[in-house]
Amino acid sequence: MIVVMKPGSTEQQVGHVVKLVREMGLKENVIVGEERTVVAVIGNDRFKDRGVLETVDGVDKVVPILAPYKMASSEVKRERSVVPLGNGATIGGKKIGVIAGPCSVEGKQQIIEIAHAMKEAGAVGLRGGAFKPRTNPYSFQGMGEEGLKHLAAARDATGLAIVTEVMSIDQVDIVCQYADVLQIGARNMQNFNLLSRVGECTKTVLLKRGMSATMEEFLLAAEYVMARGNHNVILCERGIRTFEDYVRNTLPLAIVPALQRATHLPVVVDPSHGTGKNYLVEPMCRASVAAGADGLIVETHADPEHAMTDGAQSITPEQFAKMMQSTRRIAAAVDREM
Amino acid sequence: MIVVMKPGSTEQQVGHVVKLVREMGLKENVIVGEERTVVAVIGNDRFKDRGVLETVDGVDKVVPILAPYKMASSEVKRERSVVPLGNGATIGGKKIGVIAGPCSVEGKQQIIEIAHAMKEAGAVGLRGGAFKPRTNPYSFQGMGEEGLKHLAAARDATGLAIVTEVMSIDQVDIVCQYADVLQIGARNMQNFNLLSRVGECTKTVLLKRGMSATMEEFLLAAEYVMARGNHNVILCERGIRTFEDYVRNTLPLAIVPALQRATHLPVVVDPSHGTGKNYLVEPMCRASVAAGADGLIVETHADPEHAMTDGAQSITPEQFAKMMQSTRRIAAAVDREM
Amino acid sequence: MIVVMKPGSTEQQVGHVVKLVREMGLKENVIVGEERTVVAVIGNDRFKDRGVLETVDGVDKVVPILAPYKMASSEVKRERSVVPLGNGATIGGKKIGVIAGPCSVEGKQQIIEIAHAMKEAGAVGLRGGAFKPRTNPYSFQGMGEEGLKHLAAARDATGLAIVTEVMSIDQVDIVCQYADVLQIGARNMQNFNLLSRVGECTKTVLLKRGMSATMEEFLLAAEYVMARGNHNVILCERGIRTFEDYVRNTLPLAIVPALQRATHLPVVVDPSHGTGKNYLVEPMCRASVAAGADGLIVETHADPEHAMTDGAQSITPEQFAKMMQSTRRIAAAVDREM
Amino acid sequence: MIVVMKPGSTEQQVGHVVKLVREMGLKENVIVGEERTVVAVIGNDRFKDRGVLETVDGVDKVVPILAPYKMASSEVKRERSVVPLGNGATIGGKKIGVIAGPCSVEGKQQIIEIAHAMKEAGAVGLRGGAFKPRTNPYSFQGMGEEGLKHLAAARDATGLAIVTEVMSIDQVDIVCQYADVLQIGARNMQNFNLLSRVGECTKTVLLKRGMSATMEEFLLAAEYVMARGNHNVILCERGIRTFEDYVRNTLPLAIVPALQRATHLPVVVDPSHGTGKNYLVEPMCRASVAAGADGLIVETHADPEHAMTDGAQSITPEQFAKMMQSTRRIAAAVDREM
Repeated sequence: MIVVMKPGSTEQQVGHVVKLVREMGLKENVIVGEERTVVAVIGNDRFKDRGVLETVDGVDKVVPILAPYKMASSEVKRERSVVPLGNGATIGGKKIGVIAGPCSVEGKQQIIEIAHAMKEAGAVGLRGGAFKPRTNPYSFQGMGEEGLKHLAAARDATGLAIVTEVMSIDQVDIVCQYADVLQIGARNMQNFNLLSRVGECTKTVLLKRGMSATMEEFLLAAEYVMARGNHNVILCERGIRTFEDYVRNTLPLAIVPALQRATHLPVVVDPSHGTGKNYLVEPMCRASVAAGADGLIVETHADPEHAMTDGAQSITPEQFAKMMQSTRRIAAAVDREM
Repeated sequence: MIVVMKPGSTEQQVGHVVKLVREMGLKENVIVGEERTVVAVIGNDRFKDRGVLETVDGVDKVVPILAPYKMASSEVKRERSVVPLGNGATIGGKKIGVIAGPCSVEGKQQIIEIAHAMKEAGAVGLRGGAFKPRTNPYSFQGMGEEGLKHLAAARDATGLAIVTEVMSIDQVDIVCQYADVLQIGARNMQNFNLLSRVGECTKTVLLKRGMSATMEEFLLAAEYVMARGNHNVILCERGIRTFEDYVRNTLPLAIVPALQRATHLPVVVDPSHGTGKNYLVEPMCRASVAAGADGLIVETHADPEHAMTDGAQSITPEQFAKMMQSTRRIAAAVDREM
Repeated sequence: MIVVMKPGSTEQQVGHVVKLVREMGLKENVIVGEERTVVAVIGNDRFKDRGVLETVDGVDKVVPILAPYKMASSEVKRERSVVPLGNGATIGGKKIGVIAGPCSVEGKQQIIEIAHAMKEAGAVGLRGGAFKPRTNPYSFQGMGEEGLKHLAAARDATGLAIVTEVMSIDQVDIVCQYADVLQIGARNMQNFNLLSRVGECTKTVLLKRGMSATMEEFLLAAEYVMARGNHNVILCERGIRTFEDYVRNTLPLAIVPALQRATHLPVVVDPSHGTGKNYLVEPMCRASVAAGADGLIVETHADPEHAMTDGAQSITPEQFAKMMQSTRRIAAAVDREM
Repeated sequence: MIVVMKPGSTEQQVGHVVKLVREMGLKENVIVGEERTVVAVIGNDRFKDRGVLETVDGVDKVVPILAPYKMASSEVKRERSVVPLGNGATIGGKKIGVIAGPCSVEGKQQIIEIAHAMKEAGAVGLRGGAFKPRTNPYSFQGMGEEGLKHLAAARDATGLAIVTEVMSIDQVDIVCQYADVLQIGARNMQNFNLLSRVGECTKTVLLKRGMSATMEEFLLAAEYVMARGNHNVILCERGIRTFEDYVRNTLPLAIVPALQRATHLPVVVDPSHGTGKNYLVEPMCRASVAAGADGLIVETHADPEHAMTDGAQSITPEQFAKMMQSTRRIAAAVDREM
């Protein structure tokens, strides 16, 4: 880190900063500029509390230099990770993986039927919520374990990998029993106990970005999982909260290439939550793949008007098949398969 | 809700909307304007999925009318709630309650000493984290149960109510054993399992606003707690995430009077997280009370330079005493006590 | 608009709203719901001050129904507009138009050389600033009229249409003398005098979205130009300001299909300002075209290290040629040309 | 500035950075850390394009150290500025100055009547728009010069200083003829031609913060005015654009003490635009003064229901008088007068 002193800071104040830096087990290099003095700190300060130095008299600000994550960083692992979905398919290689399905599991027949449609159109994974994080306590909260069983039945019928959300540490065991991929929702991206808990599992984790998480926080959340031993993490951009009001969320696609520079982990995009509007899903699927996304996760429903959740952003199986066709052309144009 | 049709929508499309509205058990009133047709929906649609109607052909948008929360709403309970802290003190009445203490419990002596200083300066509650939600997996994660014991010792020594964070459902029992008030952190504001779980407790809940939560989402989170039977909820504004970069968070104080119009629950402000800078804490304490806040929660540390967490935003006991003095004058100027 | 009354509003209050609505020359339809009364207002209230009704006792909120713009709206003109660039090329048709060039004109030779390189790689327009809006008063402010002359020389040499910014009403005449397309910068999107003034010109206007403008404000700015008679408006998304810090701006590509639903005007994207990082430009060019953009505007510089402005986001002619190649493949994949 | 190299950067790359730094007339200090090399740049790089170095191979990022403004900075002038309003009153001293009046001048009698009411309640300035920046081209655009004459008549009648907006360089002369203080609106905060033009006037400038301007950009806009010789600048916070939807803008009051640390210029707050809701104005006036504001600017209207503009956020003269009373108590509690 770099500690920037205020103009007119005294020698004594600089000396105090140096003392604190050495207490941290680090070394310093004091540079006296024409207007400001700065203290460049040398050594691995990745896990030190840099904020502390900001409280010291005479200090103006502290500028971090080292990224605070390590295992997730492309500085540490250069080659891109290819993460297994559990059914033989992978995310992160040449083939773009598409995960699709309803927001909520609503019944056995529903989920099996839509799984067949997704499979046929080219999906490799089936999404569907059994435990639903709902903003409103009075809304439908998901079918629970029964929903998980229906998902497993859909896997048996189609071979699709099951991707489903785990909301709480007490659900991890049961979800692991049925699912192939554990989804951590945006609202839980900084539920650190849950992150640590799924870090102890062997199942792949699909980690959604929090709706106001910085890129650094997103990667630190991945680091939480990896630090416990589970390196199979897929990052998922699902839109951020901004002032924009024609969409439910703003989908910032530049994060795809930016993440691919900062980390070796694969990156998928969720244009359903990322826009909240069914008519924006297909163009944003195309744009995501053109930006370099390693996969897509899309909400689909046979009858959106009667969907129990997220009808407004679900597309029908017919629309999904059409999206797959048009996006496959984009994939080919960036030398990938889908 | 109001369903707004697109210009040129057909009679058939309007008829289909009416059919769906009736399926929901609601009634409709179709208004044909000069340029647009709107369908006004009559009845309690508070818990219906309004988004679904947005997918229907010919529909432009759906506008909600009723607030989706009920128990938290001032529509339902007009008189302001006064919530007990557990040690005889309350938040929500004429007296403004101040909760103060270190970010983390670091040791028994530390916490007892600072508790005495806080008590003497006029605080009614002691804050201090035993379980710490840290962005970085390699940072200090709190002392756990040992920290809780130190907090209890500090209560025994001073009579201050203990306010401490519970991060996960498996910590609820143990935290209830030692604490007076259960704090739900900003990152857990939509950890719905945790909200439901503390809703089953008899301890008061201090609920922090998520850093990108809307006012409606904040009140729905409170509703989660209340829906399980626990009506002792204190709302805490702690800053939101915006583009501003001279602060750690933007502290939007207009939410204080806005909440007091929308809900009967008391509202406290956390200017420490709300700004992230120790030199902004005192002016924002004053401003919060001037805006009508029912309480404050402030981070203090005897030696911020060596604080294990959040040193940059902690003030010393001396600065705290000075803040109390200047803010007490503001309290008097709005006919309150502190 | 819909006027939503508070719960418990009186008949007298509703009557007062009705009176005000009629004073505006509009009609009303009062709907008494189970919990709330709403007053649906019938008639063209597009240009009324709806905010006024929010101050009336008993009113909770006012919900607009009609879009406040008209000429820019796809409700009024259904077929998509094809806008001339002045040199025979157009934006808005099957062919995607690319405008490229340096941030600032720095000299005659510089601009002619890069114009040739852009032309060769397939651009149809040349961008370059002669009048520069600089955040810092001490920074280079552009070459002024001399820069415009160099741009005209570059057009003579290559046939590219000249796109250059006009910052102020007193520059409009002179810029019209040399340029083909008048660019209105993001910081001037709500400089209403300037908008009106270019609305009186016959040159095409390239209107950049303000960095915190809503879609509605963006279209109202276009309406300002159109209301004065100039219908040749190209909308340009150039990134918005959010909390994200790995980019200079967040590029919200879903606005491309959203605008194409709301307006008939063509939409181009500026991934240079939209990201602020040269290594993000190419992937965002591809993503923009995949999302349906009608054009691109890209900053290029032969020697970004020595560019007088915006070096960090400029790509070299070689990188530009490579971008054109890869983006052309995307254009083909969405059945367009480039 | 500090140039941070990527991990694994070569000696040659560092050498190239050093070469560019020297070309800028600056000196360097190369620090080789355990993981990263950084180049600390020594000298006044305040007005250099730091972005350029970010394009260089091997560079990770560039961190600025010096604030880019100078005349506005408290580094340069330590004592706080007291700025004259033109009628003997000042802003920036012990006395908090209140400027009040309607959004728009609507007629001579209207403005004189409200001026008397404002004066009586304790205001020192009268606000009122003659040239109105309206988002919608079809809305009322102000009375123009006639409005200015009415304002002058109100000054003659009451002695209040006239504060009115100038939107465009061609209005500067005429507004200077009638007004005491030139207001630059939020939408024009980066209209650099206008800033430079009012910098050549002798009238005080009230500069509103742009709705997504950073603090640094705000101060650079003030620097534009000051660089032309006009040092009488008052900074006005009027709310920023965020995701919050219960207000028209989010009012970030921590900027008051933050600005008072960074600059010597006085700071006033506009809680009318800052919230957009009349019922939030009084609490936010109190909070602003408690936070240390040097003044307030408030929209008032005798009949908000019939105001031509901004009715929703205007308070009546009676509400204004009540606000003055309650806020005066806050002023006394922070040892100021009002």
